[in-house]
Amino acid sequence: FLSYFSHKSSTNMRLRLPLLCIILEVILIILFGALVEYNDDTHAKLWNANKSHSATRDDYENEFYYRYPSFQDVHVMIFVGFGFLMTFLQRYGFSSVGFNFLIAAFSLQWATLMQGFFHGMHHGKIHVGVTSMINADFCTGSVLISFGAVLGKTSPVQLLVMAIFEVTLFAVNEFILLSMLGANDAGGSMTIHTFGAYFGLMVTRVLYRPNLDKSKHRNSSVYHSDLFAMIGTIYLWMFWPSFNSAITNYGDPQHRTALNTYYSLAACTLATFAFSALVNPEGKLDMVHIQNAALAGGVAVGTAGEMMLTPFGSMIVGFLAGTISVLGYKYLTPVLESKLKIQDTCGIHNLHGMPGVLGAVVGAVTSALASPGVYGDGLQRVFADAETGKWNPQSRGGFQAISLAVTLGMALFGGLVTGFILKLPIYGAPPDTHCFEDGLYWEVKTFQYHFYIYLRNTENVQLSQQICDSL
Amino acid sequence: FLSYFSHKSSTNMRLRLPLLCIILEVILIILFGALVEYNDDTHAKLWNANKSHSATRDDYENEFYYRYPSFQDVHVMIFVGFGFLMTFLQRYGFSSVGFNFLIAAFSLQWATLMQGFFHGMHHGKIHVGVTSMINADFCTGSVLISFGAVLGKTSPVQLLVMAIFEVTLFAVNEFILLSMLGANDAGGSMTIHTFGAYFGLMVTRVLYRPNLDKSKHRNSSVYHSDLFAMIGTIYLWMFWPSFNSAITNYGDPQHRTALNTYYSLAACTLATFAFSALVNPEGKLDMVHIQNAALAGGVAVGTAGEMMLTPFGSMIVGFLAGTISVLGYKYLTPVLESKLKIQDTCGIHNLHGMPGVLGAVVGAVTSALASPGVYGDGLQRVFADAETGKWNPQSRGGFQAISLAVTLGMALFGGLVTGFILKLPIYGAPPDTHCFEDGLYWEVKTFQYHFYIYLRNTENVQLSQQICDSL
Amino acid sequence: FLSYFSHKSSTNMRLRLPLLCIILEVILIILFGALVEYNDDTHAKLWNANKSHSATRDDYENEFYYRYPSFQDVHVMIFVGFGFLMTFLQRYGFSSVGFNFLIAAFSLQWATLMQGFFHGMHHGKIHVGVTSMINADFCTGSVLISFGAVLGKTSPVQLLVMAIFEVTLFAVNEFILLSMLGANDAGGSMTIHTFGAYFGLMVTRVLYRPNLDKSKHRNSSVYHSDLFAMIGTIYLWMFWPSFNSAITNYGDPQHRTALNTYYSLAACTLATFAFSALVNPEGKLDMVHIQNAALAGGVAVGTAGEMMLTPFGSMIVGFLAGTISVLGYKYLTPVLESKLKIQDTCGIHNLHGMPGVLGAVVGAVTSALASPGVYGDGLQRVFADAETGKWNPQSRGGFQAISLAVTLGMALFGGLVTGFILKLPIYGAPPDTHCFEDGLYWEVKTFQYHFYIYLRNTENVQLSQQICDSL
Repeated sequence: FLSYFSHKSSTNMRLRLPLLCIILEVILIILFGALVEYNDDTHAKLWNANKSHSATRDDYENEFYYRYPSFQDVHVMIFVGFGFLMTFLQRYGFSSVGFNFLIAAFSLQWATLMQGFFHGMHHGKIHVGVTSMINADFCTGSVLISFGAVLGKTSPVQLLVMAIFEVTLFAVNEFILLSMLGANDAGGSMTIHTFGAYFGLMVTRVLYRPNLDKSKHRNSSVYHSDLFAMIGTIYLWMFWPSFNSAITNYGDPQHRTALNTYYSLAACTLATFAFSALVNPEGKLDMVHIQNAALAGGVAVGTAGEMMLTPFGSMIVGFLAGTISVLGYKYLTPVLESKLKIQDTCGIHNLHGMPGVLGAVVGAVTSALASPGVYGDGLQRVFADAETGKWNPQSRGGFQAISLAVTLGMALFGGLVTGFILKLPIYGAPPDTHCFEDGLYWEVKTFQYHFYIYLRNTENVQLSQQICDSL
Repeated sequence: FLSYFSHKSSTNMRLRLPLLCIILEVILIILFGALVEYNDDTHAKLWNANKSHSATRDDYENEFYYRYPSFQDVHVMIFVGFGFLMTFLQRYGFSSVGFNFLIAAFSLQWATLMQGFFHGMHHGKIHVGVTSMINADFCTGSVLISFGAVLGKTSPVQLLVMAIFEVTLFAVNEFILLSMLGANDAGGSMTIHTFGAYFGLMVTRVLYRPNLDKSKHRNSSVYHSDLFAMIGTIYLWMFWPSFNSAITNYGDPQHRTALNTYYSLAACTLATFAFSALVNPEGKLDMVHIQNAALAGGVAVGTAGEMMLTPFGSMIVGFLAGTISVLGYKYLTPVLESKLKIQDTCGIHNLHGMPGVLGAVVGAVTSALASPGVYGDGLQRVFADAETGKWNPQSRGGFQAISLAVTLGMALFGGLVTGFILKLPIYGAPPDTHCFEDGLYWEVKTFQYHFYIYLRNTENVQLSQQICDSL
Repeated sequence: FLSYFSHKSSTNMRLRLPLLCIILEVILIILFGALVEYNDDTHAKLWNANKSHSATRDDYENEFYYRYPSFQDVHVMIFVGFGFLMTFLQRYGFSSVGFNFLIAAFSLQWATLMQGFFHGMHHGKIHVGVTSMINADFCTGSVLISFGAVLGKTSPVQLLVMAIFEVTLFAVNEFILLSMLGANDAGGSMTIHTFGAYFGLMVTRVLYRPNLDKSKHRNSSVYHSDLFAMIGTIYLWMFWPSFNSAITNYGDPQHRTALNTYYSLAACTLATFAFSALVNPEGKLDMVHIQNAALAGGVAVGTAGEMMLTPFGSMIVGFLAGTISVLGYKYLTPVLESKLKIQDTCGIHNLHGMPGVLGAVVGAVTSALASPGVYGDGLQRVFADAETGKWNPQSRGGFQAISLAVTLGMALFGGLVTGFILKLPIYGAPPDTHCFEDGLYWEVKTFQYHFYIYLRNTENVQLSQQICDSL
């Protein structure tokens, strides 16, 4: 039995995956039973008890009506956006959508516990509602970013183990930034994108495969796989305004965040097309850039989006983000692989890493420039400590910069440790010759089979048989 | 002319389909003209007339703002979710999405009339608004579940005829459950899933084709068709919280239903991956399970979702639902086909049948365990007759159980009758040799044609011609 | 350098596209910096300053919560709906989704400026918020309709230049209709669909290619490209109720518009299936009809949708729209091409042109029939000048008819001028032999390459080599 797990060349999931899934889910169920309770807006008894208005209006004031549409947009980004964005590989579509589905379904449960634990227990209980659902999806997004770096080179068991550690560290980092340093980061330029990217890059560095070029012929797209990936891209792009604004304060901050993100993304898209054509000798556009770099504008206003960045500022940030992202894909990714041994399948450094850092810097600068003259009474709806009167924009900007440094440190350290844990030869990781291949973990019919089926439908049975026999 | 319809081998739709569509739509238009009116929230005159608050606030209180986002999520599930989930078949994608589109567009109109008729006329008129739109989409969902059982084996004319009967019986069953028995079933574990599943299973039983294995080679997926199907799966999964909560009472019940469904689905997904790998000799995951069983968690909290099921309870139910669904696909479906002659193309028994019954049982138990101590003032927002003071949880649980029995009876009886009606040789049903084949009802270019086009683009014209000639 | 641009046969985008994108975006950023400001609902300072209610409720009253869900639905239609609808061509999927993405991202920025300029500056500034976002997306929709006419025959540079002119004229026409003539057109039957269609048809007329049949073999669909296109169709269909209702007045008008559109589309779908089968000799359904004509019902209630059209009236309009749209595809499009030299790739005349004119006529008639007896106090929520007391339904109907005439004139004139500008041989347009071909502007791997990859995975290396060598 032990030999099953330690047999390095085996990628058989028959025991590994069921065991891990069932154990994890049983632990989750027990912890939820012990710790999780409905919050005031979801509890039958507490909802009315704390209200003093007339019954009819009360029900309309439930936070459900003001957060749930944002939640659903975020949910689409996590499951369709990330899932389909990664289907660009020619023979890894089942794993891209499927493992994305699995680790997201696990991570959102685990994140509910971890974030609930750090964000404040209520008499020893974690309170859940639509806001905790959004936060759990956010944390999940961070894990999926890291998934992009190791895509095609990991077993589902490895991915679940990675999620366990990454969610935990995410919650710690988020607690330090938001609760201890009082940082602003509504759209997660730091907590989600920078953290997820550098965590994933460190993991893939530790898991470096010198012989990965044995699977090189599968590490690229085909025509239809690129179209499936565009489904992911477009959904991420469209709903990013909802993502960045999903947990801001109500009123003008939420509205403004959506607007800023909308303009940043639009400007980013033009920059992406411009530089994609410019860096190609024949002036041809590259789907990799369009699929990814056009999204960098959303990442880069993840911190400053709720501030008075103005559409003007948002467009500049978006344009910059698209530019560095395309240039990163073209010039930096090959260097990272050859010099630093970082094999980054989806190029998350270009989509989440650099734009995330840019977003953190923009957030720090915009914080430092904030003033009551510009924000009026709205200052405290954006900067929580403006209410206390001890508010100082320059020190706020400083704390934002410190937050970025903390995030980078946590991500790199966490990725390092997690990478070494994932290196243990017990998870059924794919061999170098069979990376980027669905057939290892999924029941897949081969092309030959498909060809046979098509030919069977022809009249010329004899020829079909000949061709198929030879294939 | 009569011979056209009775010529059994003809699958020509040139007269059949236009005649039926036009007659049905004309009848619908006449009945809508005679019976359907805007309700208070959609009528220009009545909207303001019944309000006493200030004009500004009034307009924000329109139910549109509290129901429409849920409606749109449900709408996506009906048209994209169901439609693309069924595209998994290799040569039946046009029919899956297309017939889904057709029968849904018909059913939602017919359902508006049937549900309006049973749910209470207002001075002889049916009142419509966003709630009736959601209810019509719900009823449509039931028809689409049944469509899954007969997928690939029926003509569009048969499907429309099935929809006429199924929608009617759905409305009767719904009326008995909700109005006469006072049952709770906001997410439709009974009214939608159990009813749709057993109705469809009985129809496909009556339409049993002993020689269906002549089309066996088309009754399976190919690589890209499985990816299209995952679009359906993921949309159903993401929006199921909106589905179950779409017509609950406002406030905490709606919020809680969405939350419970979210957790149930997450737990269900882990169970699905676990058991899919476990039942495969090589430990490989099966797309059929992931596409379908991962959704069973939504079905199984369709009744109890609005109750104080707790996240803990929801996760247990979801985990159970995923487990029985995978086991059903693996072990029960083959037996149903070989022993009971039930050819269930999509395995609706595993996704909607068993999880629906589980959901009904969970609903009955949760109802029986309800108490004012747990629900406080919220009791009457979940259990309508708690307001009357004559509320008794045990008898409520009993009525829930009776509702399940009634639903099963109505579905089996209705499916039996409808099945025999669909057996008449006048609808242009496909022959056994051409099931699961778009080419019968759609203009489809063949693979050979595609191959020819691709080869034409090559330089070697001579070889292309040779190969294409021989194909 | 100049020879690069004037070398007619070159389709190289290396300088053209980056230059144009960067110049346009820099101009946009400068103009946004000079002219654009947050409106009252998005500005930190102004939001609270103008409110007198209690702080808590204020934030819930932000227009964000009442418009943003509609905005997101419209956004999905623009980027997924239009983008994927046009992927039906076998080798033009990258361009369809990609160029749609590019010109939409540009147009929404440019439209914000143009519409802001005409719809009323505030002390020399353009105010932006969720309503301006919806309006910008609407204007973008118009450009994408025109894109459908020239699909496959234009370079991305041409498309951007077209967008510059079309957005500008759209804003002028919209200003004349809505502000000067006081027309109703919430869903844009005239401003969006009629304008976009006839503008595009005129452009494609001027760009007539007598030798387009050299690319004939690529101007059709393949199996999977038709399924991708159905993603676009279904999203457009589902969210059209949100489109038509997105900028109506709050309350009953918005609710009613969504309801009317829902029924119009349902009836349209049955008409589409009926006539698609009827016009085919073998009674087979045509994906072109299902993909397009089923949407005509949404176009045709774009003006009257907010009025008391009743579900009965909506269904009649939808049924008519579907009918004329299918008949247009079957009988009119070939004539337009052979007699009038209008090469309309997507058949926008059938989906947007004729149904748009029908919608304008229905709107004029419904306006002329409006009365206080039917609308009560709601009259002024639909017809703005009913508030002034000088309201006259017959003259309203007349102004609606004049609006249609103005729109047709503006569209045809604008398309004519823009067409001649696009005819200049400097944009890198595709040659007649390479229309409908992604390979001109995108890095695309050929079928042969894919075939080689698949064969490489087979055991029989020798045979693979032979076949691939010969291909």
